[in-house]
Parts: sequence; C-alpha cells; structure tokens
Amino acid sequence: MFQKHNTIEKIKALKSNSGSHSPSIDTLKVSCPEIKIDIDACFLSNPYATELFMDHLRTDLISTEKLRSVLEFYPPQNAEVAKLISSAIGVSEKNIFVGNGAIEIIQAVIQAFVKKKICVIIPTFSSYYEFVGGDVEIIYYKLIKDHEFKLDVNHYMDFIKKHSPDAIVIINPNNPNGSYLSSDEIKYILNESTELGTVILDESFIHFAFEQDDYSQVSCEKLVNNYPNLVIIKSMSKDFGIAGLRAGYSVMEESRVKRLLSSGFLWNISGLANYFFTLYSNESFLKLYENLRKKYITETILFINELRSIQGIRVFPSKANFALIEIIDGRSSFDVFSKLLVNYNIYVRDCSDKIGLQGEFIRIASRTRSENDRIIKVLSEI
Amino acid sequence: MFQKHNTIEKIKALKSNSGSHSPSIDTLKVSCPEIKIDIDACFLSNPYATELFMDHLRTDLISTEKLRSVLEFYPPQNAEVAKLISSAIGVSEKNIFVGNGAIEIIQAVIQAFVKKKICVIIPTFSSYYEFVGGDVEIIYYKLIKDHEFKLDVNHYMDFIKKHSPDAIVIINPNNPNGSYLSSDEIKYILNESTELGTVILDESFIHFAFEQDDYSQVSCEKLVNNYPNLVIIKSMSKDFGIAGLRAGYSVMEESRVKRLLSSGFLWNISGLANYFFTLYSNESFLKLYENLRKKYITETILFINELRSIQGIRVFPSKANFALIEIIDGRSSFDVFSKLLVNYNIYVRDCSDKIGLQGEFIRIASRTRSENDRIIKVLSEI
Repeated sequence: MFQKHNTIEKIKALKSNSGSHSPSIDTLKVSCPEIKIDIDACFLSNPYATELFMDHLRTDLISTEKLRSVLEFYPPQNAEVAKLISSAIGVSEKNIFVGNGAIEIIQAVIQAFVKKKICVIIPTFSSYYEFVGGDVEIIYYKLIKDHEFKLDVNHYMDFIKKHSPDAIVIINPNNPNGSYLSSDEIKYILNESTELGTVILDESFIHFAFEQDDYSQVSCEKLVNNYPNLVIIKSMSKDFGIAGLRAGYSVMEESRVKRLLSSGFLWNISGLANYFFTLYSNESFLKLYENLRKKYITETILFINELRSIQGIRVFPSKANFALIEIIDGRSSFDVFSKLLVNYNIYVRDCSDKIGLQGEFIRIASRTRSENDRIIKVLSEI
Repeated sequence: MFQKHNTIEKIKALKSNSGSHSPSIDTLKVSCPEIKIDIDACFLSNPYATELFMDHLRTDLISTEKLRSVLEFYPPQNAEVAKLISSAIGVSEKNIFVGNGAIEIIQAVIQAFVKKKICVIIPTFSSYYEFVGGDVEIIYYKLIKDHEFKLDVNHYMDFIKKHSPDAIVIINPNNPNGSYLSSDEIKYILNESTELGTVILDESFIHFAFEQDDYSQVSCEKLVNNYPNLVIIKSMSKDFGIAGLRAGYSVMEESRVKRLLSSGFLWNISGLANYFFTLYSNESFLKLYENLRKKYITETILFINELRSIQGIRVFPSKANFALIEIIDGRSSFDVFSKLLVNYNIYVRDCSDKIGLQGEFIRIASRTRSENDRIIKVLSEI
C-alpha cells in the first residue's frame, strides 16, 4: 500500500515535469520501474498500422541488411521527401513541407506566419498556444460542454470577425474531444475567412473520421489550391502508429514552403522516416493500410459505444480514435488515471492540465480489440 | 560514352538542386539508377562506429523485438534525453539542448541568439550563413590558402574587435579543410571575446582531433561554465556514423536552453536517436567506441599521408576525418568528382560551391582501410 502511494507521488511529479503533456512510456519506465504498462491508451494511434509498418520494415530493411545504410547516411533533403508525399496525396511537391513530426511543423508555422493575434479553440493540443511567440496575442474560443464540445461554425465565425485575429487554428477531429467538422463546415469557415492571414487546419486525426458509410478517407488537403491562406498539418504518428519515427508534413502555398526552407529544415527527418514515406507513396502498402484503417474505425466505434454503457462517466461524441470522458461519480481525474495505471497497468490521459475543461476528464484511446475489451472490463469494475 | 555524358549532366542538375550541399546517396540512386556507389567518401563519418552501433541495435532491439515500441511510441522529451547526455559528458543537464542533428541546433541557435551581426570564417559549412535571419548582417573572415587555411588567432581577434559582431562561429576542426585550433587557442579566443554576445563553437569533428600522442579526446564542453556566451554544437553523425538517425546536442548557458525549450523542440529526436543516447551514456559502449575511434584516427593519418604522395594534387593539413584537396594539374573539381563517381563508383565532395575557396577543390573523407586503399589507388591512376 505504501509502495503504491509512493508510486502515485512519483507519477504526480513526473506529470508536472512533463508540462502539458504526458510523460513518455520510456520516461515513466526509467523513473518508476515498478510500473508495468500493459495497455498504452494515452498514445493515440492505430496499433494495426504499426504492425503493418513493422512487417514491411522487417522484409525490406532488416532481413536484407539495408537497415545499416538507412541509419548511417544522410536522409534526402526536405524537398526530395516532398516528392514522395506528393505522389501519395496528389498535391504538388511545391506545396509540401516535410516535418520532424507534426509538432515541428506547428512550431515552424506558428512562428513564421502568425504576426499579431491567433485564435485557438479550447480544449486543444497545448503546443498551439505554448509555442506562440511572445509578441503574439492569443485569444481562446471555448467549446461548450453542454453542446458536447461541438463547434458551432456560425457562432465561431462571428467571434472571429469580432476579434480579427490574423491566424486561426482548427484541429479536425479536435484533440482531446474528437468532435468533427464536416468538409462542408470546413469549406464554410474557409469561405468566411478569406481575409485572414493564415488558417491552420490540423488533420492529424482525419484518417479516423468519415462521412460515408464505407469509411472512405476525407481530407481538405487539395483545397490548398483554392485557399492560399490555408495551411494543413498532418501527423503520421497517429494513423500509421509510428510516433517514434517523427514524421509529418504540411500542405501550404508554395511561397510559404520556400520561406520555411530558406530558413532551415534541411535534413529534418530521419532515414527511417524517409523509408516510411517511400511506403506512403507505394500503392500496395496503402491498399493494405486502408483495410486496417477501416477495421480500426469499426472497432473504435464499437469501443466508444461500449464506453457509453458504463455508469459514472459521460462519453463525448468523437470521430477520432479516442474518447473524452468526464468522471461524474465524484472522483478526480487523477484518481481514476493513477488507479488505472498502478492497479491495472492501463495508461490513459489525465486531462486535468487541459485549459478549457471544467470538470474531471480523462481521454482514452482505442487500441486493439482485446485491449479495448480489457479497458471496458476494468472501467466497468471501478 | 553517350550514356556517361548523360549521367554527368544529370549529376550536375542534381547538385544544383541540392543547394550548397551534396545530394544524398538515396537521392542520387533514385535520379541516376545507373550510378553505383561503392565508396561514399563524401559523407564524413567513422564507419567502424556505425558497425558498433549496428551490433548493439541488433542485440538490444532487433533480436529482442523491442524495436517495435521504439518506433511506435513517442520518444522522451528534450529535457529527459539531456539527462542521458549529461551523464556521458559530465555537464549539467540544465546546460544541454538536444537537437535533431546538429543542423537543427545551428538553425535554432543562429535564429534565437544572433541579433545584428555574425562573423563566419570561410570556407565553412554553408548553413552557418544560409540560415541567418534577414535582419542580421554576415561578415566573412577568410582563411588564407597560402597559410594552409590555418586560422591566425591574433589576426582573427583584431578583425573581430574591428568589426564588433555580436556573434562569431568557429568550427573546430574546420569543415571543409580540417584545420585545428588547440584548446589553448580556443581559450585565448574565448578570453578575448567576453564582450561578445555569442561564441558558437562547432565541435562536430572534435572526436577525430587530438593533442596527445595517445589520441585522447579533446573538447571544450566543460568551458561553458566559465564562459556564459559560449555555445558548443555537437553532431553525432560523424563520430558515431549515424547521420540517418539525426542526433546532436548543444551545451550552453541554462537560460539559453530554457529559452529554446519554451519555443518548442519538444519531441525533436526519434526513438532510435534516443536509443543511441542511452548507448552514449553507457560506459561499456563508450569503451568499445573509444578503441574504434583511435583505430580510425590512426588509419586517417595514414590515409592523409598517402594522399600527399599523389602528384597533381595539394593536400591541406587536417585533424578531422577528411582532407581538402586542391587539383593543380589543370582539371576542374567537377571533372575529377564526376570521373571518380561515374568511372570508379567513388563519391567525393566537389567543393566548387564553397565560398572562400579560389581554385579547384574536392574534399575526401577517410573510410575503412580497404576503401582508403582503393581511393589512393584510383587517385594515383587518374
């Protein structure tokens, strides 16, 4: 009992040292070796896609001994990698900026293109306000719990017109709640925002969203040709389950790509991330991926529905691969978070550091079917 | 013959698309599949260290199946990785900033800490002037061929005092010529530069330099406690032969680390780069590395001496793992470079794009003993 109490205190300290993010699994293991993590439902990724990537890596690089040259030599420059992505998404390479994870792109885009005032929708991914330069004013547009954290686009656009920021950020689906804006809603916002300097649209979770019954992919990447102020940011960590690789890209006006590349970002992805992008531009890989993406969506929908049947919690609507959950039985989010971790080896996201959330919230990612079943079982028990 | 001519034209175009750097091997292979590269003497690394890293990787991650979690999950945050480096170099983690390769650090440091005027010694690594912000003036201090490109520290300090930059850059040993400043010379410069805002000392090639007969390591990293304006930049790509991993670090005053981390750089290295830093903080790995470092220095000295015996070229003194070579038989550097590549599958660095070099120069890296022998044989023939 004392041991467990000690562990919980250590986790508290670790969380506070990690700022507004969760400590990585590696950091947790080093600091609290007594903790065992069986299920990482803090990290938001498709585990089936990780396995697909690993299969290719084993066949292409490990068993052929080609891995050495991928690790030994310099990777191609940014603009070379952009060509691979161009062939995958059907957008000119001149509009593509490659990033060392989406987070490098967030940092670069916010610091290069936001001049005076940025509007951030909260709750959100904290880097969108933490990395903003000191001279830039941040205004917050708050999603309403009573509206299930769904953005009311008309109300939002009134707010934007009233406050005249030069940049706005929309994450779609939003993190940490998963609420989704349809392509039509995004187009409405873009049409109403043509006077704005920069519209940042983060589609890091878009592969888990859908508008058709067949779950076919939705994305606004191609709209960059119609809206020169649109900057789309795309992480590869979530949909392909490869956060350790650090790979992302951004689609934006050609002059913006040029401006960023003239200031650096030369060899900013690793040889393995470049290898991933060669797969990303490979049709047969994408076909296999597409099946796993749809399988994972099916299981995620089931998981979120099962969460809804558990008493003492409120589950918010999500078209991402996670659900935001409010604890409504009087316990704190840290209490539930640490109990899941220490007693059940399940790692979820305590959202107590998220601005814009009043109440006790945790975020749980969908994992494999069997992991999801275990999460449902444990949550039902406690 | 026509085929070869075509290939040479393609290489010319590739080089011009790669700016002031060489196209990566991967880029070359994609664009000129007819080219075979047997020896990459453009890339400046210790190939024995690469093999040591690969051995550990196979044992620790591949055969244990732990590789998946390194690639799947987020790596630790910057400040966590700094702790590993701290234990390796004996400098407080608060003084360490981790970079996605030295080049990310060059970009970050130059853009965050240089205000008005920077002095760059030429010839140099081009990013030191290319990534400088538009408002900053660049002044060049030119190394003299007749002095074998060795920096005269007194003359240099007179120049600095006359022009009053707020930042200076010294690469030691210098790239692309390998000239070395002793620890005493560096201390002299630091003592004369206490009024300067920032002294950037790039020690990316320092593991190949030595002052004692036993080749023991030299470094000014610990001086950061005595000189608050000192910023040391260290690539891991060269000494450990892992450019594809993108790993580097910088040692600087605590407030500078804090300033950089407050603006981003959160998860800026990959899981594999983090794995490398766990090895870097491991004594038994470092002991094995140290033997290979000394073996490689021995062979590099031999290689450079053998280069000197070849007619038609002039080899400049180097304490790095490469030699700058002037072609003095009337041929152009591109001619020699492309002949080595197309006819002999040896990739070297054509320095015709390097500012501060008058004449025809190529740079050749030392590789394994047998590769060096082959380079000597081919150069003697042509």
